[in-house]
Amino acid sequence: MSEQNLPTQRARRQLLAGSASALAAAGLASFTRSAQAQMASAPAANLPPVPKPFPPYVSWKDTNAMILHSSTTIETKRASQGMGLITPAEHLYVRNNLPAPAASILDDREAWAISIEGVKNPRSLSLRELKTVGLESLPMVLQCSGNGRGFFPSKPSGTPWTVGAAGCVVWTGVPVRQVVELLGGALPGMPFMTSTGGEVLPAGIDPKSVMVERSVSAQAMGEALLAWELNGQPIPLAHGGPLRLIVPGYQGVNQIKYIKRLAFTAQESDAKIMSHGYRISPPGTPSDPTQPSVQEMSVKSWINSPLPERPGTAGPVQIQGLAFAGAHAIKRVEVSVDGGKHWRDARFIGPELGKYAWRQFALAVILPPGTHQLVSRATDTAGHVQPEQRLENVHGYNNNSWADHAVTVTLS
Amino acid sequence: MSEQNLPTQRARRQLLAGSASALAAAGLASFTRSAQAQMASAPAANLPPVPKPFPPYVSWKDTNAMILHSSTTIETKRASQGMGLITPAEHLYVRNNLPAPAASILDDREAWAISIEGVKNPRSLSLRELKTVGLESLPMVLQCSGNGRGFFPSKPSGTPWTVGAAGCVVWTGVPVRQVVELLGGALPGMPFMTSTGGEVLPAGIDPKSVMVERSVSAQAMGEALLAWELNGQPIPLAHGGPLRLIVPGYQGVNQIKYIKRLAFTAQESDAKIMSHGYRISPPGTPSDPTQPSVQEMSVKSWINSPLPERPGTAGPVQIQGLAFAGAHAIKRVEVSVDGGKHWRDARFIGPELGKYAWRQFALAVILPPGTHQLVSRATDTAGHVQPEQRLENVHGYNNNSWADHAVTVTLS
Repeated sequence: MSEQNLPTQRARRQLLAGSASALAAAGLASFTRSAQAQMASAPAANLPPVPKPFPPYVSWKDTNAMILHSSTTIETKRASQGMGLITPAEHLYVRNNLPAPAASILDDREAWAISIEGVKNPRSLSLRELKTVGLESLPMVLQCSGNGRGFFPSKPSGTPWTVGAAGCVVWTGVPVRQVVELLGGALPGMPFMTSTGGEVLPAGIDPKSVMVERSVSAQAMGEALLAWELNGQPIPLAHGGPLRLIVPGYQGVNQIKYIKRLAFTAQESDAKIMSHGYRISPPGTPSDPTQPSVQEMSVKSWINSPLPERPGTAGPVQIQGLAFAGAHAIKRVEVSVDGGKHWRDARFIGPELGKYAWRQFALAVILPPGTHQLVSRATDTAGHVQPEQRLENVHGYNNNSWADHAVTVTLS
Repeated sequence: MSEQNLPTQRARRQLLAGSASALAAAGLASFTRSAQAQMASAPAANLPPVPKPFPPYVSWKDTNAMILHSSTTIETKRASQGMGLITPAEHLYVRNNLPAPAASILDDREAWAISIEGVKNPRSLSLRELKTVGLESLPMVLQCSGNGRGFFPSKPSGTPWTVGAAGCVVWTGVPVRQVVELLGGALPGMPFMTSTGGEVLPAGIDPKSVMVERSVSAQAMGEALLAWELNGQPIPLAHGGPLRLIVPGYQGVNQIKYIKRLAFTAQESDAKIMSHGYRISPPGTPSDPTQPSVQEMSVKSWINSPLPERPGTAGPVQIQGLAFAGAHAIKRVEVSVDGGKHWRDARFIGPELGKYAWRQFALAVILPPGTHQLVSRATDTAGHVQPEQRLENVHGYNNNSWADHAVTVTLS
């Protein structure tokens, strides 16, 4: 839908014509960082910038709505999130730990098989068989645990996502608990549900050092799905088709793509991505299995209109944004137009799609000409309040700081 | 996402290799009709068929998921509706009464203006101004009143839609009632809300004979929107952008595209599309303003898995489908596997998105090898039950017959 992106392209052109330091001086530091990421993905001297060709497995993405960080890390632009209850697949971020398998695994989707282990009657089930066992549809925020890393002043290694490594999408599949019941139930003494992705591993290195295998609490089985549809269509390769584990409320790394094994286990996986990857390491410390693992998401919100690149004019303004949490629904969102000194309750827009989906909010305000710092702060039904400050950590995970997500707009 | 459509293309190839009369003899008459529609849009002798190029204003549609009836009438395939709570814009049907305006009307979306009349303080408002007045998001089934016309044995003139002239999408805009309040309220004695589309009319003929102008009850203002986003993105030209009237629960013709005038009026519009078009004319009678107009939708459901082209195998089967009504939510869906002799309650899948959205349903059954006629029957919260038979009418509107929407599958 390239016809729709002309305003964005225009804003980008204007930005590329200015200097980063001038924007920083004007208080637009966070926007500057995002702009630099965009510039890095476009030929420097050409105006308007031509988006890099996207790799074949994501060639169907709406390139105008996305920031191509690398061939396996692609972010949705903040201005492209709009007021969509559901993120179109074409706009959904991509973050793959390994290159996707060959597209030929989609030639016969229903033949894809998964081994279910740690149950009374372990066996392999094809997708064809899974489809006869049960059916559920679940709207859920899918978010990379590094979403917001771009706001860390420590500049952790890894993709500098701002807000666009998240989307709210609908997964359809069979509840894991129904599959487990069919196979006689999980064995006792197995506190973990450990899942393994079907990526092809590079030869010549220890598989444990690269394989995608993650453990979550076995209790997460209660609402987990083995999913074959994303937004009502077969899951694209980039998003884990033909079969993906969905653990609602958990960060993206736990939603295992191309899942080929699901096991109830006595121990967490000893794959490196579990033992040392995705750990909340205090500043200055190496990763370590005793540190907290990236699991459930935390309460979070951000504003996506107005934005510095699309400020609008002084007078009546509808401030708009998105809010979600991990295991709990959103109960309240407050908005401040003075950087967090004073707050007013926003109202929710549109229907609630269940506790794992995000909610749109809006607040009608009158803004005079000048510069305004707009912030939102969400509270979930368990009483968790989005904090002002991020929890500092080496790898830049779980950033839900409201201060980091502020936007500064200048209205005339 | 062309990678996903191989199974459909395969089924289509197999079908094209067979003869329509053989399929009809096997009891697959309704599928045959749909297949003929598909064949009509593909070069007859080429296997696999190459989809016709779509016209530029809909070039972004997923051509593999759609049936191109004409440049202004494009249907979603039944098998492509999947279990999507929300229909992607790329899969949403297209039905325009006139060619779309030039794409240049989207160059400056916010400059689009609408005249509000029949209120205390009539005036023109730009989209830029409308965006400051209010904000709401609404999931809603958008359906052409001719959806199901293809099942009429009388073969009415007009597009022979089967089930794919419908989708459930999210509209975002300002509630009409907030705009009307801002302008001092509707004048007394104005029972109709009359809206005019911004299509360019052909020269040399009476504008009233071609213009798109429809009247609904002024009470429909209560939940109507002036919408600028479809599924979180600016409304594409094909679907009425930059600004479209949304009257939830009403048939598609009342959702005025490119809306340039909204007026509270003492009389219904005298445009031909209102006075004579979209009337429920008894068989053998000419259209006439005294006949019922196509307004609110009726309770309706259909099964979209299994389908004749994708029957699956005997044994456990999850029968799946969609149900919606007009002004009321869906309360119950029953499913029969013997053509309507015996019924069982289906269960709902996924969240309810409000009373104007459709609901997915499923029923787990064991089907032995052989031929089965699968049917669904919906009931809304006001007690309306989907009828067995269509109401015969000259132009093939409002078909909600459960018998017409049956599917016959043969399992081995």
